[in-house]
This record gives sequence, C-alpha cells and structure tokens, in this order.
Amino acid sequence: MINKISPLAPKIIKSMKLIQGINIYTYCAGLYNLNRNDLALFLFDSELNIAEVFTKSRTRSVTLDWNEKLLKKGKIKALLINSGNANAYTGKAGLIALKEVIKNISNKFTINMNQIFIASTGVIGEPYPYKKIINALAVNNENKKSNWLAAAKAIMTTDTYPKMKMTTALIGNRKVQINGVAKGSGMIAPNMATMLGFIFTDANISRAALQSLLKEINEETFNSITVDGDESTNDTVMLISTNKAKHKFVSSRNDKLLRDFKLKLKSVMMDLAEQIVKDGEGATKLIQINVNGAKTNKAAKKVARSIAESPLVKTAIYGEDPNWGRIVMAIGKSKQIIDPNKFSISLGDNLVASNGSKNLNYKESVLKKYMKKNRINILVDLKIELGNAQIMTCDYSNEYININASYKS
Amino acid sequence: MINKISPLAPKIIKSMKLIQGINIYTYCAGLYNLNRNDLALFLFDSELNIAEVFTKSRTRSVTLDWNEKLLKKGKIKALLINSGNANAYTGKAGLIALKEVIKNISNKFTINMNQIFIASTGVIGEPYPYKKIINALAVNNENKKSNWLAAAKAIMTTDTYPKMKMTTALIGNRKVQINGVAKGSGMIAPNMATMLGFIFTDANISRAALQSLLKEINEETFNSITVDGDESTNDTVMLISTNKAKHKFVSSRNDKLLRDFKLKLKSVMMDLAEQIVKDGEGATKLIQINVNGAKTNKAAKKVARSIAESPLVKTAIYGEDPNWGRIVMAIGKSKQIIDPNKFSISLGDNLVASNGSKNLNYKESVLKKYMKKNRINILVDLKIELGNAQIMTCDYSNEYININASYKS
Repeated sequence: MINKISPLAPKIIKSMKLIQGINIYTYCAGLYNLNRNDLALFLFDSELNIAEVFTKSRTRSVTLDWNEKLLKKGKIKALLINSGNANAYTGKAGLIALKEVIKNISNKFTINMNQIFIASTGVIGEPYPYKKIINALAVNNENKKSNWLAAAKAIMTTDTYPKMKMTTALIGNRKVQINGVAKGSGMIAPNMATMLGFIFTDANISRAALQSLLKEINEETFNSITVDGDESTNDTVMLISTNKAKHKFVSSRNDKLLRDFKLKLKSVMMDLAEQIVKDGEGATKLIQINVNGAKTNKAAKKVARSIAESPLVKTAIYGEDPNWGRIVMAIGKSKQIIDPNKFSISLGDNLVASNGSKNLNYKESVLKKYMKKNRINILVDLKIELGNAQIMTCDYSNEYININASYKS
Repeated sequence: MINKISPLAPKIIKSMKLIQGINIYTYCAGLYNLNRNDLALFLFDSELNIAEVFTKSRTRSVTLDWNEKLLKKGKIKALLINSGNANAYTGKAGLIALKEVIKNISNKFTINMNQIFIASTGVIGEPYPYKKIINALAVNNENKKSNWLAAAKAIMTTDTYPKMKMTTALIGNRKVQINGVAKGSGMIAPNMATMLGFIFTDANISRAALQSLLKEINEETFNSITVDGDESTNDTVMLISTNKAKHKFVSSRNDKLLRDFKLKLKSVMMDLAEQIVKDGEGATKLIQINVNGAKTNKAAKKVARSIAESPLVKTAIYGEDPNWGRIVMAIGKSKQIIDPNKFSISLGDNLVASNGSKNLNYKESVLKKYMKKNRINILVDLKIELGNAQIMTCDYSNEYININASYKS
C-alpha cells in the first residue's frame, strides 16, 4: 500500500550541505516488495564522537542493546540504518543476525566491530533478513557525500515524505554545520513508524557535552511529540560530531560558547520532530498544546500529553469541532493537581473557558472559522504554579484507521 | 445524528422483574432535539441503603460532589438521572441549578433533600437546564414499577441500545433479585458517553457490606473495560438495596451467606460492562485481554490496559490483521517488569510468540480465519509471577472517527 503524501508535508525539500568526513551510501536489499532503497550506510573518514538516546520500551530492539554497549566508548566509524525490519522480538537469532551484518561491514571496510552502530525500523517479530542485507552491501555503490536525500528516503517506512533539516550555528566566530535526517509517521507506531533521528555536525565539542545536550534537547523535541501514544521498540536519536570545525575545542556543555549551537541544535531537532507529526498517519492538522501554570514542568507535560493522546480531542479537531469540553475531560483524567474553578482554556486567541465555566463572550462563528486552520493551538493555564510544557501532535482521521487496519497483511 | 445500532448489540432485550418498593417514572424535558425521554426518576417507598463509586477525574461533575456528601449517611429516597447535559465544568451556577432540581423533587414528593441522589450525562460545559427539567417533572406521569426498559432508554446518550441485566441469587434459601441498568458507549467518552451503572436489589444486607462489595466488584467489571482510554467527568456506579428479602440480615461482607450473591452481582455488573464495550463507538469486535504471570495483579492490569488502549492494536483487530508485533510493542510500553525472552502471546488458541520469538508452527491461514470472529481473545503470559488481570475492549473503526468528529456541532 502506498499512502497519499500528507497534506501537511513541506512544499519543497531543501538539499543539505555536505559535512567533510561523512560519506553516504544507499542500497536496495529488497526488504520491500517495491523497487526502493532500504539501506543507508554512513562511513566516516575517522572515528567520530557519538551520543545516543533510546526508547524506554521494555521490549526494545536488539539493535539498541548493541548500540548501548558501544556507547560506553562512544566512538563511531560506521552507521547502518535499515528499513523493512525492526529486528525486535527476534530472540537470540536476532542478535546473531545483527552480528553477521556488523561482521560483514567490519571486514569489508576494515572497521573495528565496536565502532559500527546500527538502527533498524520496520516489522516486529519477523526474522532479521541479514543475508539480503549482506548481499546488497556487496554491490559497490557510488560514495556520495551529498547523498543526504537518498539516505532520508532509504530509511522511510510509512513516511509519506523524506525528512531533513539543515542549519548553521556560530561557535565563537566560526560557523559550524548541523544536518539532521529523521523518519517516523505516527510517532511511536511500531512495526513501521518507529521514530529515528540522526543529527550530524562538525562542531568541535566533547562527547560528554554531546550526550548531555542530546538528552536535554531530546526531551523538549522528539520526546514532546506524539501521534497515538504508542511507543516503538526501536525509537532512537543519535548525535554525531566530526569535531573538524576550526573553533576552540569546547569541553563543557555549560560553556557560553555553545549558546548559539544549543539553540540551533534544538531548532533542527524540533523541525524534524514537527515533520514527523505532520506526517502522522492520516494527519490533516498539526496541534500544538501548551500547558502553563502547573505545579511542576513534569505535571504540565502530563496534562499536555493527556490532551494530546485523547482520541476524543483528536477526532473533534479532525471534525473541526471546537468541542473544548473534551479538553476539560482530558485535563481531569491526567490526575495532576488541578483546581477546576481556576484553569482556563484557549483555542488560538479564543478564550473558551475560565474559572470553572464557559466564557460566554466567545463567538461560536469566530471559533468555527479558527478550527478550519491546519494548525491548531490549545493553551491551558492551570493557574497553580509556574510549571509549563509543550507537546505537538496531530488529529485522528479516517485515514489513520485505514492505514493501520491494513499495514501488515 | 442517529448512530447505527452496534453489530454487537444483543439480539433480544429481556424485560426485568419488578422489585417491590421501587417506582420508576420517565419524562421528556426536551434536552435533545428529538422526541425522546431524557429523565428517569426512581422513587422509593421507604429510605433505602445506597453504595456508590465515583470517577477519579479531577474535573468531575458537581453531581458527584453532591452524591458524595449524601453518601456519608447513605440513605436514598429518590434518584434522578438525566441525559443531555453532564452538569460538569459548570462552576457555581451548576451547583445552584442542581439544588433547584433537588429542591423541586423534595417539595413535590415530600422528601428530605439529603436523600435525593442525582446522576447526569451529556455535554460538558453547557449551563445545566434546570428549568426544563423542573417543567418536565411537573407532568404527572404514570408510576410504573415495570418501567425498567423506559428508564434504560431515557438515560442513553450515544448508546445505540438500552442496557439491562437481571438475575436472582440465593441468600440462605431465599431468592433475592438483582436488577441493573447502565449506559455508556465508549467508556469514558465525555460529552456523551459517560459510563453510568445502577444496580438494585432486595437483599437484606448492611450498607457497609454493599459499599465494600460494590467497590471490589466495580474494580473487576466496570473498571476493567475501556473503549478509548478517555475518562468521563461523570462516571459513577450505584448499588441500592430495599432490604426487603426475607432471609436473615447479613451485616458482614465476608459472611458465607453472601457467596452466591457476590457471584451473581458480579455477573450482572460484568454483563452490563460488556454491553457498554459492545456498544463502543463504532465497535465491530469485542476484545478480551487476559494477562497472566505478572509480578502483581496491578502490573497485570497495567499491561492489559496498555494493550487495550493501543490504537495500533485496536486498528489491527478492526482490519482482521493478526499483527501481534503491535501487542509486543504495547507490552513493552507498559513499563512493567517484563522479560522479553520469556513471555508468550496467544490469539485465541493460537500461540503466536513465546520465549522471545515468533512461533514458527502457527498457521497464518488458521490465524486469519480466527481474526474474522467478532470476539477476539488476546492471552499474554508474562511468566514472571502470578499476577493476573482481564480487560474488555473493542476495536477502532472508521465509524469511531465519524461519530466523534461530528458529535457536538
């Protein structure tokens, strides 16, 4: 089944600048019944620093066990990403199959096995097709430093468009490059819609700083989006640096020199995260939820997530129905500290409820017009303390059901 | 909008025996733009014992605040149930409106206000239409002890059929009657699909025993169903007894005399709970999930709920797709103690996965045939310890989206 391109897809996909020392190859291992590439191999001229964060799923893919072990040293010379098979719930055979692929790359390119990372996405529980992958890698494909788009395409599953974002940041008076590619459509939709993110930079900063920044910014970006509340066995985000930029080496993440880099890294990760939501299965609207005035930031995030994951809120927005009573319900079911006689709810600039009752001054006609937009902002002010959070999600449409009722068979 | 009757609706609705001392009236207060009753008034010949359990929502209806206060004494002479308006998120005006209705019933039937309970279901955040309700109650309707079906119909919102269940139990050598009515379609769907349950009996048992039994059995029945994971502001279940049965008075819930009564009470509550799931918005299949071998019963319930509330599992079952990889995902995202190399998953009698990998012996053709049934059993054995739980749910269909995208406007 080929899905229609999301109506929220970007109109143009900008190509990305190359980063010295990063070589990109793509291959077709025939993991789909379609003529498309399904492998992306990144080879690095020298060993690079890598940071990575993982899904908290208790049934995660063996690929993440492998990477987590390698991450203790945190040096990478090659990264293989495959779509078409998640290598999750594949038991001991899954680990053996993974090692066959790693060994093959190790021999072919003379790389220590402990510097080869891997990421997989696709169907769960099916044997990992390592022979097909090894056969595909035997082909001598053209090495392209500019293969970013090809890589973004090769890692797609039910994604309806490839996801890339590039920017530059200043460290001292030197420009550094930040390139990101990601996949996912329906965050956290297993079998197919695993969320994978790969960020590459030439910034000359320590591995400890990379890991710390990734963890923090991931929480505010990739971990602040949701499509259906389901969490993949394979979700992962990597941040890899060549350290080749000519500015002064930065060892601490708190160094003021990193101010702009942090902002720009967050902007790339947020952009990719939003691209994933916009490609949410069947999405017709992007929904931004801001919760302020909670007891803590954590409480705010729980309330925001409760709204974002409520099927009734998501179907109402699909129906362009300003049914804010469902938002009241979702706030209530979050079980956080709430005073029902205090909090307020706005849809865009329209205050619809506050102090325990409906705002009798809002105009239904204005509100209905607002609901027709393809980006809806829900703002909740709990008026307790200062905790705040933001979550991005999308609506639930008939298309979501159609896609997911017919994925495997 | 009138919804199609659920394909899972019972073929016949059996009428229920009357219970001496319980009088039932129904009225049309015009709370819908349809010619239908929307009020059910239960009047009792004497003050009866009542037990009640409530939603845990932090934005619950003022009706539940009212009842909770009265429940300290636990005596009831009248119960009013209205559909069409939830009286939730209605602020102080909601409480004033509620009291107007209570006062009216108090004057009209000469009943102490503190013995008049109320339950509401319908739209959230709209002013409570107390004048319409008072006007409707002014009509002298025929008192009917046999009005059970009329009452079950009057309390419906998006329900596609009325829900009743009757049985008898033995206490000593005396038969006692248990009559239940309920409403809900999409447990926990606010604005419309609040879950309300009302159980009546003539058993001669203490109020403390009633409350204790209700709490325990509610956990295993009404609290073990889910349609969409959303939790209503108005969910409540009441257990009311006339105490008129001629057996020896039973004061303790642990009295052996109550053995059969407990079983039968549970069967009535479970039957009503299943009827609610079968009327789940857009449901085409009933899904029973059993989780065994968990660390604790609580952990088992969390795993079962994670499966039951996974949109990806629910859409796969709608699509008759034996996509058990999604069950692996849902087990993982529950965050409970799990050994991925141990647990097993069966769909009906078909073992599909165990010990960390796919069961290579199951027949895809047999499994595909099984998925066509309208009742699907998912059995997970975590093989850790002995905790177990059961959850009933239904699938997600296009109809779910259609109903919920077009409810309010």
